[in-house]
Amino acid sequence: MLFFECDYAEGAHPAVLERLCATNMEQTEGYGTDPYCRQAGNLIRTLCASDGAVHFLIGGTQVNTAIIAAALRPHQGVLCAGSGHINVHETGGVEASGHKVLPLPGHDGKITAAQIARACDAHRADASREHLVQPGMVYLSQPTEYGTLYSLDELRRISETCRVHGLWLYVDGARMSYGLAAAGNDVTLPDLARLCDAFTLGGTKTGALFGEALVITAPALQNDFRYIMKQRGAMLAKGRLLGLQFLALLEDGLWLRIAAHANTQALRIAGAFRRKGCPLCYPSPTNQQFLILTPQQAGALTAHCHFSRWSELPDGRLVTRFCTSWATRTEHVDALIGHIEAL
Amino acid sequence: MLFFECDYAEGAHPAVLERLCATNMEQTEGYGTDPYCRQAGNLIRTLCASDGAVHFLIGGTQVNTAIIAAALRPHQGVLCAGSGHINVHETGGVEASGHKVLPLPGHDGKITAAQIARACDAHRADASREHLVQPGMVYLSQPTEYGTLYSLDELRRISETCRVHGLWLYVDGARMSYGLAAAGNDVTLPDLARLCDAFTLGGTKTGALFGEALVITAPALQNDFRYIMKQRGAMLAKGRLLGLQFLALLEDGLWLRIAAHANTQALRIAGAFRRKGCPLCYPSPTNQQFLILTPQQAGALTAHCHFSRWSELPDGRLVTRFCTSWATRTEHVDALIGHIEAL
Amino acid sequence: MLFFECDYAEGAHPAVLERLCATNMEQTEGYGTDPYCRQAGNLIRTLCASDGAVHFLIGGTQVNTAIIAAALRPHQGVLCAGSGHINVHETGGVEASGHKVLPLPGHDGKITAAQIARACDAHRADASREHLVQPGMVYLSQPTEYGTLYSLDELRRISETCRVHGLWLYVDGARMSYGLAAAGNDVTLPDLARLCDAFTLGGTKTGALFGEALVITAPALQNDFRYIMKQRGAMLAKGRLLGLQFLALLEDGLWLRIAAHANTQALRIAGAFRRKGCPLCYPSPTNQQFLILTPQQAGALTAHCHFSRWSELPDGRLVTRFCTSWATRTEHVDALIGHIEAL
Amino acid sequence: MLFFECDYAEGAHPAVLERLCATNMEQTEGYGTDPYCRQAGNLIRTLCASDGAVHFLIGGTQVNTAIIAAALRPHQGVLCAGSGHINVHETGGVEASGHKVLPLPGHDGKITAAQIARACDAHRADASREHLVQPGMVYLSQPTEYGTLYSLDELRRISETCRVHGLWLYVDGARMSYGLAAAGNDVTLPDLARLCDAFTLGGTKTGALFGEALVITAPALQNDFRYIMKQRGAMLAKGRLLGLQFLALLEDGLWLRIAAHANTQALRIAGAFRRKGCPLCYPSPTNQQFLILTPQQAGALTAHCHFSRWSELPDGRLVTRFCTSWATRTEHVDALIGHIEAL
Repeated sequence: MLFFECDYAEGAHPAVLERLCATNMEQTEGYGTDPYCRQAGNLIRTLCASDGAVHFLIGGTQVNTAIIAAALRPHQGVLCAGSGHINVHETGGVEASGHKVLPLPGHDGKITAAQIARACDAHRADASREHLVQPGMVYLSQPTEYGTLYSLDELRRISETCRVHGLWLYVDGARMSYGLAAAGNDVTLPDLARLCDAFTLGGTKTGALFGEALVITAPALQNDFRYIMKQRGAMLAKGRLLGLQFLALLEDGLWLRIAAHANTQALRIAGAFRRKGCPLCYPSPTNQQFLILTPQQAGALTAHCHFSRWSELPDGRLVTRFCTSWATRTEHVDALIGHIEAL
Repeated sequence: MLFFECDYAEGAHPAVLERLCATNMEQTEGYGTDPYCRQAGNLIRTLCASDGAVHFLIGGTQVNTAIIAAALRPHQGVLCAGSGHINVHETGGVEASGHKVLPLPGHDGKITAAQIARACDAHRADASREHLVQPGMVYLSQPTEYGTLYSLDELRRISETCRVHGLWLYVDGARMSYGLAAAGNDVTLPDLARLCDAFTLGGTKTGALFGEALVITAPALQNDFRYIMKQRGAMLAKGRLLGLQFLALLEDGLWLRIAAHANTQALRIAGAFRRKGCPLCYPSPTNQQFLILTPQQAGALTAHCHFSRWSELPDGRLVTRFCTSWATRTEHVDALIGHIEAL
Repeated sequence: MLFFECDYAEGAHPAVLERLCATNMEQTEGYGTDPYCRQAGNLIRTLCASDGAVHFLIGGTQVNTAIIAAALRPHQGVLCAGSGHINVHETGGVEASGHKVLPLPGHDGKITAAQIARACDAHRADASREHLVQPGMVYLSQPTEYGTLYSLDELRRISETCRVHGLWLYVDGARMSYGLAAAGNDVTLPDLARLCDAFTLGGTKTGALFGEALVITAPALQNDFRYIMKQRGAMLAKGRLLGLQFLALLEDGLWLRIAAHANTQALRIAGAFRRKGCPLCYPSPTNQQFLILTPQQAGALTAHCHFSRWSELPDGRLVTRFCTSWATRTEHVDALIGHIEAL
Repeated sequence: MLFFECDYAEGAHPAVLERLCATNMEQTEGYGTDPYCRQAGNLIRTLCASDGAVHFLIGGTQVNTAIIAAALRPHQGVLCAGSGHINVHETGGVEASGHKVLPLPGHDGKITAAQIARACDAHRADASREHLVQPGMVYLSQPTEYGTLYSLDELRRISETCRVHGLWLYVDGARMSYGLAAAGNDVTLPDLARLCDAFTLGGTKTGALFGEALVITAPALQNDFRYIMKQRGAMLAKGRLLGLQFLALLEDGLWLRIAAHANTQALRIAGAFRRKGCPLCYPSPTNQQFLILTPQQAGALTAHCHFSRWSELPDGRLVTRFCTSWATRTEHVDALIGHIEAL
């Protein structure tokens, strides 16, 4: 059985695990104050050309809700695409922290500077605005939940708009490595550090056992963030496990190499489907590919392969997701392509 | 200047104020445990043919957020029309209590039993449902924010759907009197008591200085509700002020008589606009009428009259609201109609 | 039956009610944006010699939880005396907003600058401080829950300590009038405005139907406070009712005159008890007097008079509270004194 | 340098790490729905002689706040010893979920059934109880934060009291293994399952990289708990990492063997101090020993050894903690004892 359902089916990349094993019996301080976390933080600052604060948290929902709770005042909400992870797939974690998610209609999972500006202008122009949730932050994901990417130009405009309207800009990079490694991507880590107030580099979906690195560039958001981590159960006792994993991934570019591999395999799969006439939903250059399949096609592939069924179209066809990862083997993709060609 | 902007521009109906003055120097227990609150509660139970619990709170946002917080578990949200007051005009009060509002596309401000069932079925069918907010309650407003009414048949189906799917059904009756008194309405208070788990009878917008009566028919929601009121600052120290006002409004049907007057005047206004060819947005038989006016028409009326500008249509025309109340004088409506005819 | 149980047993002072009746049929904007609220705000600013923001809320729990939620970041808590209203009698309203109350042992209901400094120093010195709630605000009540008063010197030291340690200073003045009018009080409204970041002038317990005026002097706390009021159901639709009442109370010093009357009567009661040998618990110069009575004494008085039983001492004696108000009649106090003398 | 500062300075027990490495490249479902979590859950149910629900979470603060949020209604709080971890060392995580911690004075870190009963009786007897936070749960830690243990008899009485008063009983077992393995302990896992509504078996402090197993025996608390985990960022994407670690620890009793070793070493240290005349603070039979040292003694040991300084006594002496773990080497304890003897 082939597995293209998600990018977190295996454990860690062997290099990551090796690092954990090699240091296992060392004694360090807890809670992320150890030398490995310091080293990993320094490395990330170097890669980002930033002197921001770097924190290591365990998972994406945790880091999203923590930074949003840290940034917003009680009456503020967070603008995002309707398909944004915080709006859909975090069981209302943001609302559980007291804040409304303010979804905007996305296009290919993305929103635009113009939409954000319009939302802020409309808020300010409303005589009843004190009865409305005030936009206080913009949440983007890069790559988006649909695998697409913001261009540097798009991101720059959004950043400017946020600064004009007094909004924090936060980018969820749960799959950032796949974005950085994607063909055509022109957004670098220093760009993110310059344009955003906070962003993450995801480990869980690119070879770590778990872990997200949060870079906070805005001084006001840096202040006391570790208290908020602890309050929310987001401070790992043996925090060095996070630092060590990011060191293994980032020190020699492993993170990007394995992401590039996953992207290549994903595009091979997409190509096979396209040749077969199956439409792609979104122009994704990264490791997630969304395909429209007939029930017959989906059924035939199910016999050989795990993939996600995302939703059903009114005409009965299915939106499906095929996902590769650092662990995807080329020969497995070959096999999948064979099955696609046989549809 | 004529005033049709809202239904809470004046103080209280004279009969209400008189009751407050007559009892002013009496000494009673505080916090709603006094004889007047008891009497008013009994009267409401009689009118509703229900043995439910009755509580008196000060305002609508307070009562909505309190009953929702009391009813839902942390991972649950509340389904409502996109135009629902809790989704739009309470500064995220529900989210501040930790719960996501789950808006459904409304039609004339209403949602249907079928929509609710579909939302619940979709939730249950989603393999990732634990990552989604679970529907736990349905919020309706009767009349809706657009002045429209649920029919008994519609309400009955919604109630059945809620029971099938394990959802609480709560009806926000901030303008309930106008609904009960409306031509064509077939939903009575005993219907509400039978079909809903909780609902309110609004005082603020029908002649009280302030105050909403909350009827809780579901025993599980009755339990300890006064603690939750107090926690949220919703327990008035001199609670009898609420009981007294509801007694004055409800004892001899004053509440319905003044609402009927307001409805009549509202329909006179709507008729004048219709005769002039100005389209009505919604089929409202109650005291709020939403009209589409050209900027010229709106401008001309602005010279004589306060009304609300709700939104702007893509073609530049304006959605406006004209609102009557218990205090609206017939001669003022005559004057407004004169201005409409002169457009 | 005589009534000394609390200071909110009656409705409003006649002058207050008269003002509401006189303006009842006027039409004004809602939500506190009307001319009466503006006037009352200006008057309060004048009395306080401050250009702070003034907001009118309905009750004490509401105003306490709203200003605390507005001021604190998620990981911060509020220092107060263990007997502080927010710690004891608000059903955990502060915690429901996400913040821990950090009680310090009080003396006569008060805490000291030294205690506050020690708490902050201890926090900062703790290597695990990120695992502790960070003090972010000090809550005082003036008069305290026990009727006692902070002197100007005490308040000044607390204010300095708060500024040194970066804490907001908030004073709950639910019974402020009684404090201002008390013999020996040396804290004025301009002192409060100069020394605190926010404080309230209570109406409910001094002649209003309801209402607390919140003065916010710290610019950072002024920002967007009305959004937070609305979110918490603390923005009264017919907001002018609050402005009108405060105008009636404050315009010609009525507020202080009636408080002085209540204080005088309270001290007469305390004197009678003292002559009888019943110990006073606290040195209160205001309208609340706490007496230690034997069960026999308490029982004898219960036949004639309502008062509060606060707690029971290990030796079986009772701590009781006798409370006067603007509405307390001298002849009723005479009668009570007669009963005390007959004990 | 010797390390006795905490029990989470190393990584994982080699057997745990080996298990993770051996299964690293397997593909499983995410979020704890994999076969390893199922197996580990079954094993725990067998060990507990219970058919309760078993969930695996990452850390202690997370599991404490999640189960408390899942169990309490908005107006309820949780009773615990003043020294309880949730009251002191979780940065107000419980309050951030909206609930007040209700501390009772502990004795050796423990509270009694009688104290709990008194708190509930006092609440119920208070005429103003609706203004107070209602006790809804009892939180114990076993072993306590001071290393002490509840006896079966004490636990049974607390359990009965909780049932009589309608309180949930939750036991935080972050160091449960050390308790189970302690000399004189008479509380077994089946006892906990029978007497509590929920309890945890801690992994982080006994040989896991991280992880707490939560056993929920009360059906009402089992319902939808995974939603609440996800909402709070407590559902690990690669959930099998938790199941695998608990299998490694529990399958053949490793967990208890390594805890017994740690206890033995801790008691050797305590014995050395006692022989030297240094008083023990608490009668701890587990891996944490609290000693009172003079500043000179503490200073002398600091040259050789890491340990925790807990607090300072009024006479200047220090309360210190020496902590052993599965990883503590006998020869390191020999060395420490040598240093103690040389004091």
